Amino acid sequence: MTSRADHKILLDESEMPTQWYNLIADLPTPPPPPLHPGTHVPIGPEALAPLFPMDLIMQEVTTDRYVDIPQEVQDIYKLWRPSPLFRAHRLEKALGTPARIYYKYEGVSPAGSHKPNTAVPQAYYNYKAGIRKLTTETGAGQWGTALAFAGALFGIDVEVWQVGASYDQKPYRRMMMEVFGAIVHRSPSMLTQAGRNQLALNPNHTGSLGIAISEAVEVAAQDPAVNYALGSVLNHVLLHQTIIGEEALRQFAKVGDYPDVIVGCTGGGSNFAGLSFPFIRENLKNGKNTKIRGVEPASCPSLTRGEYRYDFGDTAGMTPLMKMHTLGHDFVPDPIHAGGLRYHGMAPLISHVYELGLMDAVAMGQLDCFAAGVQFARTEGIVPAPEPTHALAEIIRQAKECKETGEEKVLLTALCGHGHFDLAAYDAFLGGTMIDHELSQDSINAALETVPRI
Amino acid sequence: MTSRADHKILLDESEMPTQWYNLIADLPTPPPPPLHPGTHVPIGPEALAPLFPMDLIMQEVTTDRYVDIPQEVQDIYKLWRPSPLFRAHRLEKALGTPARIYYKYEGVSPAGSHKPNTAVPQAYYNYKAGIRKLTTETGAGQWGTALAFAGALFGIDVEVWQVGASYDQKPYRRMMMEVFGAIVHRSPSMLTQAGRNQLALNPNHTGSLGIAISEAVEVAAQDPAVNYALGSVLNHVLLHQTIIGEEALRQFAKVGDYPDVIVGCTGGGSNFAGLSFPFIRENLKNGKNTKIRGVEPASCPSLTRGEYRYDFGDTAGMTPLMKMHTLGHDFVPDPIHAGGLRYHGMAPLISHVYELGLMDAVAMGQLDCFAAGVQFARTEGIVPAPEPTHALAEIIRQAKECKETGEEKVLLTALCGHGHFDLAAYDAFLGGTMIDHELSQDSINAALETVPRI
Repeated sequence: MTSRADHKILLDESEMPTQWYNLIADLPTPPPPPLHPGTHVPIGPEALAPLFPMDLIMQEVTTDRYVDIPQEVQDIYKLWRPSPLFRAHRLEKALGTPARIYYKYEGVSPAGSHKPNTAVPQAYYNYKAGIRKLTTETGAGQWGTALAFAGALFGIDVEVWQVGASYDQKPYRRMMMEVFGAIVHRSPSMLTQAGRNQLALNPNHTGSLGIAISEAVEVAAQDPAVNYALGSVLNHVLLHQTIIGEEALRQFAKVGDYPDVIVGCTGGGSNFAGLSFPFIRENLKNGKNTKIRGVEPASCPSLTRGEYRYDFGDTAGMTPLMKMHTLGHDFVPDPIHAGGLRYHGMAPLISHVYELGLMDAVAMGQLDCFAAGVQFARTEGIVPAPEPTHALAEIIRQAKECKETGEEKVLLTALCGHGHFDLAAYDAFLGGTMIDHELSQDSINAALETVPRI
Repeated sequence: MTSRADHKILLDESEMPTQWYNLIADLPTPPPPPLHPGTHVPIGPEALAPLFPMDLIMQEVTTDRYVDIPQEVQDIYKLWRPSPLFRAHRLEKALGTPARIYYKYEGVSPAGSHKPNTAVPQAYYNYKAGIRKLTTETGAGQWGTALAFAGALFGIDVEVWQVGASYDQKPYRRMMMEVFGAIVHRSPSMLTQAGRNQLALNPNHTGSLGIAISEAVEVAAQDPAVNYALGSVLNHVLLHQTIIGEEALRQFAKVGDYPDVIVGCTGGGSNFAGLSFPFIRENLKNGKNTKIRGVEPASCPSLTRGEYRYDFGDTAGMTPLMKMHTLGHDFVPDPIHAGGLRYHGMAPLISHVYELGLMDAVAMGQLDCFAAGVQFARTEGIVPAPEPTHALAEIIRQAKECKETGEEKVLLTALCGHGHFDLAAYDAFLGGTMIDHELSQDSINAALETVPRI
């Protein structure tokens, strides 16, 4: 028997959800369509066919409320899913709060984050379509690791362009991708025109996510047996992540509790959407009233300080135009340690949900975040990745508020990964060399100048 | 409902064992007693009092069959325990074996290994005894991380002397200890006489486990409010680890299966004992017939090539003399990557069990081990620590044997930790620079020359 007094609320494999949830089906209005970068006309599914298999493209545009999870994908999910929902008894006690704090922990996956939830179905649908190789980009390496793992299970080759600076400074992630059998290139590389162009400008180029995307896309576009995979932002990626929230709903039902507040960190948005979208459905359809809040880094505040406009998904301006909260596609965030949150835009679907008033957002400086991460590690034992410390900092703030007011609120957060490969960031924090970057309105305005006028 | 067809066999927190098991109570003869290093007379509990609290000393010498796990320790265990028992369906399929392969996974703990199973009760009993600080040594850092975590939960300071070479080369483990609040010194340090002596001989000394032990013991011995903690070898450490095997027994009962073979890696022996001792009880008392096998590194083969003699536990010859399988206390193993298995001796209790014929042992070169680790990662998703790849290599060998014979054997192994901090070893393996060290009989004989004649 599991109860609220337990630390872990677990589901059997037989209780794992068998469908992903598509929030679009329950929204009062659909999100605006992507546009062709040249003509500014809405694009159809066929425009994505050179890069993605048709099953994923159909998921990208579907208005079905639920999408079945293929049996082959369920089988692999069960290597680590259902993931545990933890009650943070020891953190509550340390804070002296009457709030009940829960965290849904995705760090139990082989790659150590929520990313395999979408890497596995993406590899599966590509495998089913006869694709022999997937290309992708990665920064710090979470997404590349997840796709490398998924590729290994389906016998698909995975080729990763990793941002040069990370490739040089964080070799462990590269090594982990290689253990799973992936080939990892330092980006910019001599293997693509996009890479060669950059190296011609600067032979010591340390790369960027935008350049790495260009290299991966270039290789995939040239060979019909090679496709490209993306780890966040797109509708089908957010769809796959909803298994997180669907499980959490079942876990709360098991112990007779329900969250008053959900807080998640937002970079591209897939982890946040994965936990919160099923609860937004409950708000819209079943009379629930959970407050949903995204937390973004103060140095990359696309929701709280960006504009809701059509912009490119990549720095080079090669992707379709997507309506989203953006700081401008050539905005370069300060080098904070939460690499997974350093994205100039926000998933179009989350941006739409935000505009509809179904969620709100706050921005947080990294010093507060790491202080929360250390307190969490010393009470709950898990060293969180820098990204989810943003949500933890906000949860701790609210739990302290509850101590003042005496409210027994139920707080839920997505702990989307562990920090085993991010310890240098904790070292900087504990050593006193970490700083909070100030982001001037002028620099935001300058980056927004480059966004197309549509 | 959980069945053999599942990937994970889980227990609720309410099903967690509430007692540790003491194999000594069920052995036909007790293990030989430790001797005073000077007089060679058996030592009593009081000889250990300067370093350990009386509760742990009593556990060291108890002949009780079961020892209650304190409620405070149970509460902390539940942050990650009961740990999952996995059925390795995907590995079985890749091998084409009729064998059923199970692995008990301890990498879900906050420190990433089985070590917190004893670090937590050790910190608890010291806390109860009014101890304010614990000192210890660590090599690669698994044990130091576990004690740092346990100290954080009880508000006990933890001071760790880390072998200099590891301190320099593997900063992530140091950082993780610091996140948990521990103070980590590079050993040899200027803080102790033992350290200063070594630095006087060589200012650039890269340290050794033996020196680090001497430093930690020296500091603990000088202050009644400071104690020392050891992560393996001793009876009370093995006792605490038996929760692993007790859980596994309950998990097998849940799915109506039972292991024909148990394989574990052996360094000091605590992980191996933790899984196997409760099954040895079932062999002795309940008519079971599970074959128990230890796997040690070919470059540090204390069971298969050492001698069963009284020897010191540390290199400097400061500890009581313990009867154990030893390669000689100044034996220096080749620098294999499984740092946790580089110990010159074997736990006295395991040595005794081995002499009684209740288990056997084989030695394995590291190239075979890492090949097994990579195959495991690419099928089951978990990148194992170098230590348990020794057991995996033997399990895979036996599973292939079953393919030849058609036997549907049930194979169980202890997967005692993940390899997130050991990826450089995988990098060496995949890059082709790893070698198997040849261990000559002459070098073993030379080290055995230094063992006292008793």
